[in-house]
Amino acid sequence: MTARNLFLLPGDGIGPEAMGEVRKIIAYMNEAMNAGFVTDEGLVGGNAYDAHGAAISEDDMKKALAADAVLFGAVGGPKWDSVPYEVRPEAGLLRLRKDLELFANLRPAICYPALASASSLKPDLVEGLDILIIRELTGGVYFGEPKEIIDLGNGQKRGIDTQVYDTYEIERIAGVAFEMARTRQNRVCSMEKRNVMKSGVLWNQVVTETHKAKYSDVQLEHMLADAGGMQLVRQPKQFDVIVTDNLFGDMLSDVAAMLTGSLGMLPSASLGAPDGKTGKRKALYEPVHGSAPDIAGKGIANPIAMIASFAMCLRYSFNLVKEADNLEKAIANVLNKGIRTADIMAEGAKKVGTVEMGEAILAEF
Amino acid sequence: MTARNLFLLPGDGIGPEAMGEVRKIIAYMNEAMNAGFVTDEGLVGGNAYDAHGAAISEDDMKKALAADAVLFGAVGGPKWDSVPYEVRPEAGLLRLRKDLELFANLRPAICYPALASASSLKPDLVEGLDILIIRELTGGVYFGEPKEIIDLGNGQKRGIDTQVYDTYEIERIAGVAFEMARTRQNRVCSMEKRNVMKSGVLWNQVVTETHKAKYSDVQLEHMLADAGGMQLVRQPKQFDVIVTDNLFGDMLSDVAAMLTGSLGMLPSASLGAPDGKTGKRKALYEPVHGSAPDIAGKGIANPIAMIASFAMCLRYSFNLVKEADNLEKAIANVLNKGIRTADIMAEGAKKVGTVEMGEAILAEF
Ligand SMILES: CC(C)[C@H](C(=O)O)[C@@H](O)C(=O)O
Ligand SMILES: CC(C)[C@H](C(=O)O)[C@@H](O)C(=O)O
Repeated sequence: MTARNLFLLPGDGIGPEAMGEVRKIIAYMNEAMNAGFVTDEGLVGGNAYDAHGAAISEDDMKKALAADAVLFGAVGGPKWDSVPYEVRPEAGLLRLRKDLELFANLRPAICYPALASASSLKPDLVEGLDILIIRELTGGVYFGEPKEIIDLGNGQKRGIDTQVYDTYEIERIAGVAFEMARTRQNRVCSMEKRNVMKSGVLWNQVVTETHKAKYSDVQLEHMLADAGGMQLVRQPKQFDVIVTDNLFGDMLSDVAAMLTGSLGMLPSASLGAPDGKTGKRKALYEPVHGSAPDIAGKGIANPIAMIASFAMCLRYSFNLVKEADNLEKAIANVLNKGIRTADIMAEGAKKVGTVEMGEAILAEF
Repeated sequence: MTARNLFLLPGDGIGPEAMGEVRKIIAYMNEAMNAGFVTDEGLVGGNAYDAHGAAISEDDMKKALAADAVLFGAVGGPKWDSVPYEVRPEAGLLRLRKDLELFANLRPAICYPALASASSLKPDLVEGLDILIIRELTGGVYFGEPKEIIDLGNGQKRGIDTQVYDTYEIERIAGVAFEMARTRQNRVCSMEKRNVMKSGVLWNQVVTETHKAKYSDVQLEHMLADAGGMQLVRQPKQFDVIVTDNLFGDMLSDVAAMLTGSLGMLPSASLGAPDGKTGKRKALYEPVHGSAPDIAGKGIANPIAMIASFAMCLRYSFNLVKEADNLEKAIANVLNKGIRTADIMAEGAKKVGTVEMGEAILAEF
């Protein structure tokens, strides 16, 4: 069997603790299932800055490019709040996304039944919620040029960012959304601000044409992004797959994640295009939550989002569908048993730390 | 007494019906209080396009510029979904904002106690909610150039929008936020994406400097806009005044409005800078809701947002503070009596149409 190469980037804050629990699952899969995972590890974010003066080193970038999949923890923290913009912790993540061409960010917003009451929404609005947000991840205002601050003199500066989308970028992300919809409820809602943005006009056109040309069996709806934000709060269950650009995706997926009451539990996958020859796609898996510096190192962080990200990795990078399903079921089982980390603690539940949670999931796996 | 000049732009959809109820309040104030309002009226949006081939005529633009205040209904509808981008209904509103230099958009997100149960959030999270969102309205990605679609050949197009902010633009909107905070709970939260956008870096710097130089008595917090969206859903009552840019303000104020359960009821004010000589500021008042073409012309639209927008007009354009307070109290009283339009109907309440709601409020005024 060929080796399955994983590159681990635990990052800052609670990233390393959460990654520790995934490492145990990997070791278990190698031992008990002969899964053949080979892991290497690097630095990203503030830690990389401290070690190399960059948010990720060239050496680690090479390893990320060569791996079958990257597992990413989290980056950032107050310690690096005033490092120069170019080497801030987030720059490492953004470079990984860009250089690996991970244009498709899959963010499931699901509500774990055991946690429905933790949502700030009324339980009946979120029970059973299962949305998949597909966010474009390598274009838009995140990477467009010019992106700069100009000194205009007289104490005046000008900050500029540029939102750019080309037809092919919209086409390929729309394709991912339609493909994913076919494996679900077969419905896609595309969100932009075509009433204000020219990139939104183009987005709307290209999604419409892609739908007509290749995916007319899928139900397609268009919504303005501001109205989309409202509808997510009003009636989230109306959505199946949402496809949107990098910046709207950032905002809308965070709102959707918060709705579920399961924020600390949500995974994400960032995928590239399938290679023409091998069919393999580059991929990075990361929790939706951040580095939570306030609780880092205390052993109380919730490792579930990181573990669920690894389940996505099993599914999308290695086609280990059954194993992915089982790992996700193990998470649900542990929750149903009332085992909880502090962030999702509920009355009558058993409060555990990071390691105990990881081990409880492994025991159910 | 000098005349108080109001320019009415009812617009499309339910705009004219809602404006009809404000017209009665104006007539009543002239008669009973000798308020001296002089009104003129124009076309905007789809109606203006049908009449003039533009989203607002030059003549009406002149009248808007000359008025003490503009009252704006709503624009848009399926009838105009495929008119050219330059003359789409929204272009009329955007031109008004830009040419009148209405840089400060005030969007209160309040939860009417009688409607707390209508929110999709748990009642205790929204009861008593009172946030003021201050959205920059004449800059950012809404107006920056280049804003275009380029044909690249080979079936490829490129959509471009440009986010631009200058120091003075951030300074003046921050100033409005700090001033408003002083009349409230004295707390401002500024939101941007400084971890990704250079305009966000500048925004953060200028807000910080403005605070230090002139408003250090006000409590200032910074939040990333995506985290801000999350926090609005998680714990909205943590906020007093939120200040943010044009696009984030569009998204965040819609989410905040939806949280209140009072979406159809929320007003907004868009203000310019005080004139150097007279101290007067140009202003436009409009409901946060849209033109709701599906219920237009049926006499069932909720006129409360439009009437509450007129209350803001009384307060900010004419310093008629007591009258503004009374009008707002009249709205609350009618709601407390269980009088409801269809959109806010509740069990045991009395369902009324647009005209009856308007008259009920006038009777309490
Ligand atoms: C950390 C930051 C650069 C990032 C983003 O804005 O994309 C994060 O918010 C996310 O959503 O993954
Ligand atoms: C109608 C549209 C152009 C407008 C905007 O995007 O500003 C609306 O959504 C608003 O919030 O006032």
